[in-house]
Amino acid sequence: MPTVTFLPSYRKIDVERGCTILDAAQRAGLNVNVICGGQGKCGKCVMFVQAGKTSFDLQKYFRFFNEDEIRRGACLACVTSVDGDIQVTIPESSLIQEQKILITREDLPIEFRPSVRKFYVQLQPPSLADPSPDLSRLLWGIQKSGGPVAEKMYAPLEVLREIPGILRHSDWKVTGTIALVPGGYRLIDLQENDTAMRLYGAAVDLGSTTIVVYLWDLVTGKVVGIASNYNKQISCGEDILARVNFARKNGLAKLQALAVESINTALTSAADNAGIDREDIYEVVIAGNTVMTHMLLGIDPAYMIAEPYVPVVRRALSVAASRIGIACNQNCGLFAFPAVSDFIGGDIIADILACGMAEREEISLMIDIGTNFEVVLGNREWMFSCAGAAGPALEGGEVLFGMRANPGAIEKVTIDPTTLAPAYTTINSAKPRGITGSGLIDLLAEMLVAGIIDRTGRINTGIENDRVRKGDHFPEFVVVWERETAIGKDIVITENDIKNLIMSKASVHAACVTLMKEAGVTRHEIATIYFAGAFGNYLDKKNATIIGIIPEIGIDHVRNIGNGAVAGANMALINRSKRKTLDEIAYKIAYIELNAEPSFMEEYTSSAFLPHTDLTLFPAVQEELEATRNHGKE
Amino acid sequence: MPTVTFLPSYRKIDVERGCTILDAAQRAGLNVNVICGGQGKCGKCVMFVQAGKTSFDLQKYFRFFNEDEIRRGACLACVTSVDGDIQVTIPESSLIQEQKILITREDLPIEFRPSVRKFYVQLQPPSLADPSPDLSRLLWGIQKSGGPVAEKMYAPLEVLREIPGILRHSDWKVTGTIALVPGGYRLIDLQENDTAMRLYGAAVDLGSTTIVVYLWDLVTGKVVGIASNYNKQISCGEDILARVNFARKNGLAKLQALAVESINTALTSAADNAGIDREDIYEVVIAGNTVMTHMLLGIDPAYMIAEPYVPVVRRALSVAASRIGIACNQNCGLFAFPAVSDFIGGDIIADILACGMAEREEISLMIDIGTNFEVVLGNREWMFSCAGAAGPALEGGEVLFGMRANPGAIEKVTIDPTTLAPAYTTINSAKPRGITGSGLIDLLAEMLVAGIIDRTGRINTGIENDRVRKGDHFPEFVVVWERETAIGKDIVITENDIKNLIMSKASVHAACVTLMKEAGVTRHEIATIYFAGAFGNYLDKKNATIIGIIPEIGIDHVRNIGNGAVAGANMALINRSKRKTLDEIAYKIAYIELNAEPSFMEEYTSSAFLPHTDLTLFPAVQEELEATRNHGKE
Repeated sequence: MPTVTFLPSYRKIDVERGCTILDAAQRAGLNVNVICGGQGKCGKCVMFVQAGKTSFDLQKYFRFFNEDEIRRGACLACVTSVDGDIQVTIPESSLIQEQKILITREDLPIEFRPSVRKFYVQLQPPSLADPSPDLSRLLWGIQKSGGPVAEKMYAPLEVLREIPGILRHSDWKVTGTIALVPGGYRLIDLQENDTAMRLYGAAVDLGSTTIVVYLWDLVTGKVVGIASNYNKQISCGEDILARVNFARKNGLAKLQALAVESINTALTSAADNAGIDREDIYEVVIAGNTVMTHMLLGIDPAYMIAEPYVPVVRRALSVAASRIGIACNQNCGLFAFPAVSDFIGGDIIADILACGMAEREEISLMIDIGTNFEVVLGNREWMFSCAGAAGPALEGGEVLFGMRANPGAIEKVTIDPTTLAPAYTTINSAKPRGITGSGLIDLLAEMLVAGIIDRTGRINTGIENDRVRKGDHFPEFVVVWERETAIGKDIVITENDIKNLIMSKASVHAACVTLMKEAGVTRHEIATIYFAGAFGNYLDKKNATIIGIIPEIGIDHVRNIGNGAVAGANMALINRSKRKTLDEIAYKIAYIELNAEPSFMEEYTSSAFLPHTDLTLFPAVQEELEATRNHGKE
Repeated sequence: MPTVTFLPSYRKIDVERGCTILDAAQRAGLNVNVICGGQGKCGKCVMFVQAGKTSFDLQKYFRFFNEDEIRRGACLACVTSVDGDIQVTIPESSLIQEQKILITREDLPIEFRPSVRKFYVQLQPPSLADPSPDLSRLLWGIQKSGGPVAEKMYAPLEVLREIPGILRHSDWKVTGTIALVPGGYRLIDLQENDTAMRLYGAAVDLGSTTIVVYLWDLVTGKVVGIASNYNKQISCGEDILARVNFARKNGLAKLQALAVESINTALTSAADNAGIDREDIYEVVIAGNTVMTHMLLGIDPAYMIAEPYVPVVRRALSVAASRIGIACNQNCGLFAFPAVSDFIGGDIIADILACGMAEREEISLMIDIGTNFEVVLGNREWMFSCAGAAGPALEGGEVLFGMRANPGAIEKVTIDPTTLAPAYTTINSAKPRGITGSGLIDLLAEMLVAGIIDRTGRINTGIENDRVRKGDHFPEFVVVWERETAIGKDIVITENDIKNLIMSKASVHAACVTLMKEAGVTRHEIATIYFAGAFGNYLDKKNATIIGIIPEIGIDHVRNIGNGAVAGANMALINRSKRKTLDEIAYKIAYIELNAEPSFMEEYTSSAFLPHTDLTLFPAVQEELEATRNHGKE
């Protein structure tokens, strides 16, 4: 079998001839970026073949590479197959970048109390004086070793059948695994000898694009591995709507299998890297949005994508992981987060758990922004939630030079108010190729403060500066001159880009205000605003306020929680009492349908300014704008 | 396909050529007596072919029939196969005689509260105003219809997956089946439209020889069918020890499958006769001895047949019936009675439940006699139990003319004290062929009272009467003269028979006394003695006291409960709160190992008299014996 060696890690794997380089990389435990699901369409899985023979379709390459790049070995890993021993370099930009978890166990007063425990017991063999049944003997032994009361434990038939053989074969020295379940404690596994130190659990963020797995040692309470993987469902449709429609046409089986396969790939990668046998994983906690969770469990999501938008189930579910094909111990339990509605899913409940807003008296506002956004407002007594389409602008879509957070993407920008020259940083400090969402927000705020644009987003073409010019269709501002870029042309932002950005931010702000009005809460009463998800990671909080994405509450009170979905899943995994509160949280949250709220459209119109039509809602921004204007006048 | 017509019922069935007549009869729902499991060995399945062609091995017939009988069409149904349309008469003696259930729902203050209920609900379809999830909508509907609180109900994954399709296909009119399980209420089935009247449950007495099934309508609370069947495990061994040894050699799978098949045959027969779809059976309750229950569930019974006699599990078990192959609704639950030890099994716990002794303050003694016996003494506070081998004599084995309760068996006997002529009744009033256990007990008591035997069981050969004579090996008493019998010879009882009977009865009595000593209870404190099982059905209570099987407490306080195993299973099926108490009962019962009690052997020796060495323990018997003796002297 040919050997594929990946650089710079020198990780090696033997694969059959004809295997794609992408498959080889995944089997080697490398988390490659593949948005299109391996169809040669997204151009994310770029690698460089350094030596050895490969087969490929040159036409597909030309969509992404020029001749020079191809000569240097550039290839799309998903459509290039291995023909013999090869050496391949993977640029960092082709690997999935971990989303940071900004809230960790260290930050939170969260006790380590997993719901699965192992007990090693050395039992007295039965005698005429003590002929008690095998099960009682075992359970009393576990109780004596600090386990639950014997009467509250029970063994399912498949474990029961194995008890007599294992007890006698191991000379009455065994390790029992006990899981807390509704109605008692379940003996989910029995092993010969002492395996008590081998007990792991996985927390999974089941995203529609990316799946993130945290592997925990449930004895020591430490993370032993992290892996992520693209969601292979993408081959059935890029967005959720397309996938549900695929399921309506072709049945759910394939999508269910792909979700499981995606999780299994990440799980395997995390376990292999940590040197752990997947058989020792006894618990999986999954936070995903409502459609993803339905699909994973094989529950029809069809009625969620059309009026009246009805999920089959919203409560938390506990099922046998093996029942749906998750590759871990055959008696492993799977816990899926509950949802509020089809738009406020388990991922948002996990965000809420992660930021702790449901435990505090003070009021918090939590915002998760992607192509869609979800907003939750409330405290431990009450909560309101809503969701909507933000459009792709805030993630760099529908913006001429917008791009995702890959090397060469501008992620931070400041503008010299005098020269109007931008200073910027790029990912990996590479030559600029485009601008990320956070870069665009900086740009908008800085252009507003510098007076390059007005509060409606129009570019002040009267300014005498090379960078301000009329483009082919719209006025534009040059962020980076051609000579400094990696793409051989000026990187600009156009008035049309700005319009798209304002439309996006206006939706989010209007949603926040709609919930605040519903709850009768003013911005002064909001103690903290949380950003969840990748969007918040690189966001400049001050600039987010200046352009009016969020209500102005003072930037010290704006926090990013990063990947709250996996953070929440982690918490539910390592502390069983957290899990109990989830259904309560989900039931407490009222869902506001924005399209049914006339005030939302009004507020959207008012929010389509920088930061807002009503500047008294943004006093600090007003002050700054006035200060700068006065400064300009001086 | 040939048609087999069974007389006298004229039940018809089409079978393939080569099918045995036994199989044909079973498929036609007839419960044929087959102790040997269809090997042509026990001679119980005698039938008479009236017309048509059959194939058979004549040699096998000659073991059981004379030429004349064969000419009249006599055949062994299990080794005779169908060669064309035939007509077959089944004598009543070849059908399994139902054991009476002497304790019925009418006798006991038992409420009808099954643990499975159905609810027909007509739901409002979802709307934008009420987009609650399918599951919530359904559960709230069930709650409103009188079901449990929605939050306490849950749906397993397989039902959850069906909910959206069934709700919409049935226009939101559905019937949900809810079962009480540990930790809540489980939605075990969802059907379109109103099926609420179709809800059945089965109570099963899983005996090592015979399986009895009661089919209940769980809506009306009435029995709708009863069926019994021989335990097909018999083909792997006649007694339990042989079957466990078979399992040790060949694995448990075959025995497990045969137990299930036996139950399924009876279940199918009961359901078919009642015109019920087995799919509508949602609950099965099983009472069987410990080895039988282990085998049915596929749990290794190997460690129960040798010291230190350890079962794997004694507590009650709830499993999915489909998990072990029981032919009913795929989500049907199966409840297996708990046990005390490998010798005091679920059948005895069912006896205890049936006689109600665990609920009363007064002390009861419960005795179940077969080849083995079990004795339980106690009240609602405490209980002692023991078990032992009674030997076959009390069931008619090891007695020259002993036989089971088939036609022609003498079941009641009285002896004229003057002429010493016995008067008797036989089963079906047929000409006598032998004597049943109850007949033998009558005989022993009457012979003692008439002075034909003394208290050691020796025959008074000094009596001048034709019936008292020296046999070939032992003195004997002629019960029926040749000319009155169906077998062409005198039916006698020998001194050796009497010795065997006394040994058997002495074991039972010594066991009773051992428990009484253990508990510090005298016969005066025992309020009731219960006989459970077939043995008690025809037993003369006074005679049982005269020969000293049981302590003397006054015959008004001796009761038969008949098939207590199925009666107890019935109670646990129709009243869920009964079921909850079973584990408590089982845990309360102390098990006394008779072989480890020196006093048992002593008491056995004292009990090997009629009724006992110490006549002061049987004052009424003493009085009667003295009265008769004096009468004889007058």
